Amino acid sequence: MHTQVIVLNGGSSSGKSRIARSLQAVLPDAWLSLSVDTLVDAMPARLTTGGDGIGFAEDGGVDVGQEFMTLQDAWIAGLVAMARAGAHLVVDDVFLGGAASQRRWLDALGDVPTLWVGVHCDAAVAEDREAARGDRVSGMAAKQADVVHEGVAYDLEVDTTNTESMDCARAIAAHLGYLSERSAVEQTPTRGGRS
Amino acid sequence: MHTQVIVLNGGSSSGKSRIARSLQAVLPDAWLSLSVDTLVDAMPARLTTGGDGIGFAEDGGVDVGQEFMTLQDAWIAGLVAMARAGAHLVVDDVFLGGAASQRRWLDALGDVPTLWVGVHCDAAVAEDREAARGDRVSGMAAKQADVVHEGVAYDLEVDTTNTESMDCARAIAAHLGYLSERSAVEQTPTRGGRS
Amino acid sequence: MHTQVIVLNGGSSSGKSRIARSLQAVLPDAWLSLSVDTLVDAMPARLTTGGDGIGFAEDGGVDVGQEFMTLQDAWIAGLVAMARAGAHLVVDDVFLGGAASQRRWLDALGDVPTLWVGVHCDAAVAEDREAARGDRVSGMAAKQADVVHEGVAYDLEVDTTNTESMDCARAIAAHLGYLSERSAVEQTPTRGGRS
Amino acid sequence: MHTQVIVLNGGSSSGKSRIARSLQAVLPDAWLSLSVDTLVDAMPARLTTGGDGIGFAEDGGVDVGQEFMTLQDAWIAGLVAMARAGAHLVVDDVFLGGAASQRRWLDALGDVPTLWVGVHCDAAVAEDREAARGDRVSGMAAKQADVVHEGVAYDLEVDTTNTESMDCARAIAAHLGYLSERSAVEQTPTRGGRS
Repeated sequence: MHTQVIVLNGGSSSGKSRIARSLQAVLPDAWLSLSVDTLVDAMPARLTTGGDGIGFAEDGGVDVGQEFMTLQDAWIAGLVAMARAGAHLVVDDVFLGGAASQRRWLDALGDVPTLWVGVHCDAAVAEDREAARGDRVSGMAAKQADVVHEGVAYDLEVDTTNTESMDCARAIAAHLGYLSERSAVEQTPTRGGRS
Repeated sequence: MHTQVIVLNGGSSSGKSRIARSLQAVLPDAWLSLSVDTLVDAMPARLTTGGDGIGFAEDGGVDVGQEFMTLQDAWIAGLVAMARAGAHLVVDDVFLGGAASQRRWLDALGDVPTLWVGVHCDAAVAEDREAARGDRVSGMAAKQADVVHEGVAYDLEVDTTNTESMDCARAIAAHLGYLSERSAVEQTPTRGGRS
Repeated sequence: MHTQVIVLNGGSSSGKSRIARSLQAVLPDAWLSLSVDTLVDAMPARLTTGGDGIGFAEDGGVDVGQEFMTLQDAWIAGLVAMARAGAHLVVDDVFLGGAASQRRWLDALGDVPTLWVGVHCDAAVAEDREAARGDRVSGMAAKQADVVHEGVAYDLEVDTTNTESMDCARAIAAHLGYLSERSAVEQTPTRGGRS
Repeated sequence: MHTQVIVLNGGSSSGKSRIARSLQAVLPDAWLSLSVDTLVDAMPARLTTGGDGIGFAEDGGVDVGQEFMTLQDAWIAGLVAMARAGAHLVVDDVFLGGAASQRRWLDALGDVPTLWVGVHCDAAVAEDREAARGDRVSGMAAKQADVVHEGVAYDLEVDTTNTESMDCARAIAAHLGYLSERSAVEQTPTRGGRS
């Protein structure tokens, strides 16, 4: 059965959203890209400053309260329904709870064909990229780099430390059996040295 | 039964998203704010330049193709499932198809308690606000101001031409039976002259 | 001599940037719109979290340190040079220091023909708009509404409480002797009731 | 004499702005980061849709008209004045005119101590990154990759094809004689394999 949902899990600044955008460019169907950031943006402002919602500490720590969790469960249920209604989804998320976070998705996804992708990035490199973006609380990248993968099971793992987002996307597309003409051309030896 | 979904329908630059943010501030529960812009942002870039997707012409015209419609149906199904799973939603949309657009939502919403709100704004004022934002294609506001309301049935209609977004939100909250302490204070005569 | 610089001074969420964008739309020449936000965005991230830079407290208070002031002086000098080199500028600023803030601009501007515009907004309305934007620290609007105007001298004052940004811009353009065809048409009785 | 201005020149999606943000993080003084994008954002909307302003064609081509050039000259004069007034500037630009573009900056900078940095990126990689960003007209990266460097003289050249933005920034900082404690630590063998 064809994969309907691709879940990208990785720490902040690991490159998830760039891989998601790249997947949209290389995959033949129209995939929607939605992330936990979309959910946070949709929340009332008062739920994004800690408490029962989600809080971003000055040291890069992220705390999640009960109300955030409740809304997130409904959010996940909605995304799964979107997939069941026919939409292809690339979801990028940060499994702050590791295996427990994946469990919540698994319970909601049921038999929806899903590809689980771990997005790794060396903590020091992710920290550098966080500074280069200039729009993230410093410290998140390093704190999340490893913990989000604890106990999580993947179909495929990619690492952006030395590989471009687009090349990670091509690897995911190839794993799914898609190999666009463009990818085929670009994976000839003229590009081979880089990926 | 309590309202689970508030649908705000109005033309571009009529003030929908500001009313949505205001509703999040005045309503006691945590409402998620999602809009057709969220959907467009989630789409592959190639679907946002016309063709089968959505296209924005230089004169402010908006064309929607079959692939956009298909994805939007799945999107709507997902949002309804989010509401059924317990999330309160403020959805802002632009019913380019008027009554036909509302019909699609009605079919998907079924018995989910929904409040239908028409967001009006004088076309010339909306056009001025479009210019003042400086980030929208010029002409959308004027073209959409009236057509999006054709044949649409509402529980409540607000008009931002002379009323602040927050005051429109308070009117909606009052209609729902919510009157926060803050609203009560602010609706005393010291504010009365304006609303 | 023709006005080369328009300085808009007002509190947060008073409508300065919308007036600036509107001015760009109605004025015949090409005016550049630059604001203190442009300066803050240009600063290293570490200068936007307090200390010697600029800090935004949770209650809406804004503190400005010595390094911020030094950079701002150079910024102002640069903008004045831009104007002397022929660019028309709309500058929007928040005179946290009231008359002292204006003094710094006056000293830098020298004989550059400048129009000083005070942008007022009822504190409660500005606070509502701040909430409706959903992207500002709550409390800034109310705290700054009056204090930024203390001791500041203006050529013209506008009030966005009951007047659209674009209509404020038209009033400023008219004061400068510009009355575009579009404005003339729109100020006929069909619009008269609102402005 | 100490360098007051760092000019980064490179094609779209070559990594200039990430290097600029990284430089702000590693350099000891407070450097302002300003780019041609800042200028375009400051312009009236009507100057960003072609004609006498700047136009972005669907194939990634960029056309610049006379009014854009005139405003840009004033912009450059202003930035140089900012530097003369004491601000340290990282300027990122796209020399669409190659050597002629540099000439305009050289004439304006006069004796202001400036470091000229060429930012290279393999055209195919830049094109991939352009797609991964998802917010740029497709085709700009490939078109600009080489042409912007034609006839331009540099003090230092970096290449982001296989080097992180932050590591490019560290190389620039080292060239300037700055080697922050943090850089020293991070350039130990534990990171050596990557850069």
